Amino acid sequence: MESVKILDCTLRDGGYYTNWDFDEALVDSYLKSCESLPLDYLEIGYRSPVKSEYLGKYFYCPDSVLKAVRQVSAKKIAVLLNEKDVSLDDLEPLLGHCTDLIDLVRVAVNPVNFGRAVTLARGLKDMGYEVAFNVMYMSNWHKVDGFFDQLDQVNGLVDYFYLVDSFGGVYPDDVRSIVTQVKSKINSKVGFHGHNNMELGLINTLTAIEAGAEIVDATIRGMGRGAGNLKMELLLTCLSSKFGLEVDFNALGRVVAAYGPLQDMHQWGTNLPYMVSGANSLPQKDVMEWVSKRFYSMNSIVQALNNQSAGVEDN
Amino acid sequence: MESVKILDCTLRDGGYYTNWDFDEALVDSYLKSCESLPLDYLEIGYRSPVKSEYLGKYFYCPDSVLKAVRQVSAKKIAVLLNEKDVSLDDLEPLLGHCTDLIDLVRVAVNPVNFGRAVTLARGLKDMGYEVAFNVMYMSNWHKVDGFFDQLDQVNGLVDYFYLVDSFGGVYPDDVRSIVTQVKSKINSKVGFHGHNNMELGLINTLTAIEAGAEIVDATIRGMGRGAGNLKMELLLTCLSSKFGLEVDFNALGRVVAAYGPLQDMHQWGTNLPYMVSGANSLPQKDVMEWVSKRFYSMNSIVQALNNQSAGVEDN
Repeated sequence: MESVKILDCTLRDGGYYTNWDFDEALVDSYLKSCESLPLDYLEIGYRSPVKSEYLGKYFYCPDSVLKAVRQVSAKKIAVLLNEKDVSLDDLEPLLGHCTDLIDLVRVAVNPVNFGRAVTLARGLKDMGYEVAFNVMYMSNWHKVDGFFDQLDQVNGLVDYFYLVDSFGGVYPDDVRSIVTQVKSKINSKVGFHGHNNMELGLINTLTAIEAGAEIVDATIRGMGRGAGNLKMELLLTCLSSKFGLEVDFNALGRVVAAYGPLQDMHQWGTNLPYMVSGANSLPQKDVMEWVSKRFYSMNSIVQALNNQSAGVEDN
Repeated sequence: MESVKILDCTLRDGGYYTNWDFDEALVDSYLKSCESLPLDYLEIGYRSPVKSEYLGKYFYCPDSVLKAVRQVSAKKIAVLLNEKDVSLDDLEPLLGHCTDLIDLVRVAVNPVNFGRAVTLARGLKDMGYEVAFNVMYMSNWHKVDGFFDQLDQVNGLVDYFYLVDSFGGVYPDDVRSIVTQVKSKINSKVGFHGHNNMELGLINTLTAIEAGAEIVDATIRGMGRGAGNLKMELLLTCLSSKFGLEVDFNALGRVVAAYGPLQDMHQWGTNLPYMVSGANSLPQKDVMEWVSKRFYSMNSIVQALNNQSAGVEDN
């Protein structure tokens, strides 16, 4: 347990609910509380080429944002790149000038674009960053032809290779077997990023650690896409009682309280439609839209998900 | 899986939040939806000698309540007795005349009063009821002298012997080992009743089933004492996708929606103080009072729990 690193990605994954706008006072209070918590990395947001729709400043994380973070926080700073939005040519304008502001660049990788992501990783490594792969859809990796055979390409390039349970649908036995399989192929450190559709975020993360994972993600109050993530307060409380991890519960209580009003407003967390999408490995993007618009009844959402799951055309 | 029975105890365990008063329309809608769900038992409330403070009608479940339930529901009906409140002499006035209204009598048993509970079980069995023991504090059973040696006294008397994770603090490995140990001592069917302080309700219940448990509890939206129980909608969704259990998701959606306003009002579910109490096997009774009075800050609650855990006097 001593060697396991913890990454908080509340601003990055929670941004799905606020369109990556966060009140400055909240960010300040978050950063200050995190200083007293046993966290290794804070993922502040994305870096991205400009998109056509409006997205808030933590989707772009300009230097001004990162400088402000550095002034308050001594933690290592991470940003995420969406591989699908970023070409090799984008790297220099996006990240060519800020190794002093960013420690770790994570890349969200669709397993079918693994080769392209390896090229990006080489570019990032050459720039001097720590590099992580967040490889999505782990419950479907076995369906991707040759996926496991190509993994050794990350050796020497990727510091952290994350299993991402995008659908919140994997069970501890799956986590144990996939961590073991991945560790037999690569020498990067293995990470786990869980979603909480079936309230399996904690046990999947503990199982990943037991199986040899060396970095894990969580967010304050589980704020994150769809049903949300493993709750940081749950992870820290558990690691404190189980392994004696030192936790300042006053700081933890402060940051949990600080995000209370946002949760009251956006109501993230699991519910029946997210449970159904998790249990059947269906994307939560659609569910998130249906639920947030409060336009469809629970029943019709669950029915639509069941139809998708049964291969019936959506209604 | 086919042989596993499911008991819903929303009214009984959820009553901690409503003082065992429930709106009749809600109960009616609950009972009707449950008719379409794969549930074997509904636990409607307690039977109890009159207590000095006010407690609502589902704490006493007079015949009129049970008759009304029987008119709507074809499910088997259960009530719970608190062993600490009920002597052998109370049995006849409490339950001597209603084997037509109640199928299963569960007894909440403090492990230190095991012998007394066995006497009650004999009385209940003689009256013709199915009998269950809900033995509390499973995370502390190993601390009770001779606890496991006396278990065979339930053979022939107790139909279901429940492991109750009162603190919401056990992990799947604990569940597996305790179910196995109990099954080696007794021939009653084994049950599991989990609380959700650490969001381990689902995985602990699945683990209990895997280890041979034959009946499990859950409640709608997890409504139940303190941090609440395993959510019935999560259990059914999971058993549907994992084992092909037939679930009418429209009925499930209806009953989940019906309890929405109550949850908005009472805000049950886990939070940082409940996580701390679960992780350290501390009673959630105090936490429930502190949290519901909104009189203390999260910080002071967590601090108080930590002090209890460290053996420091409470503040």
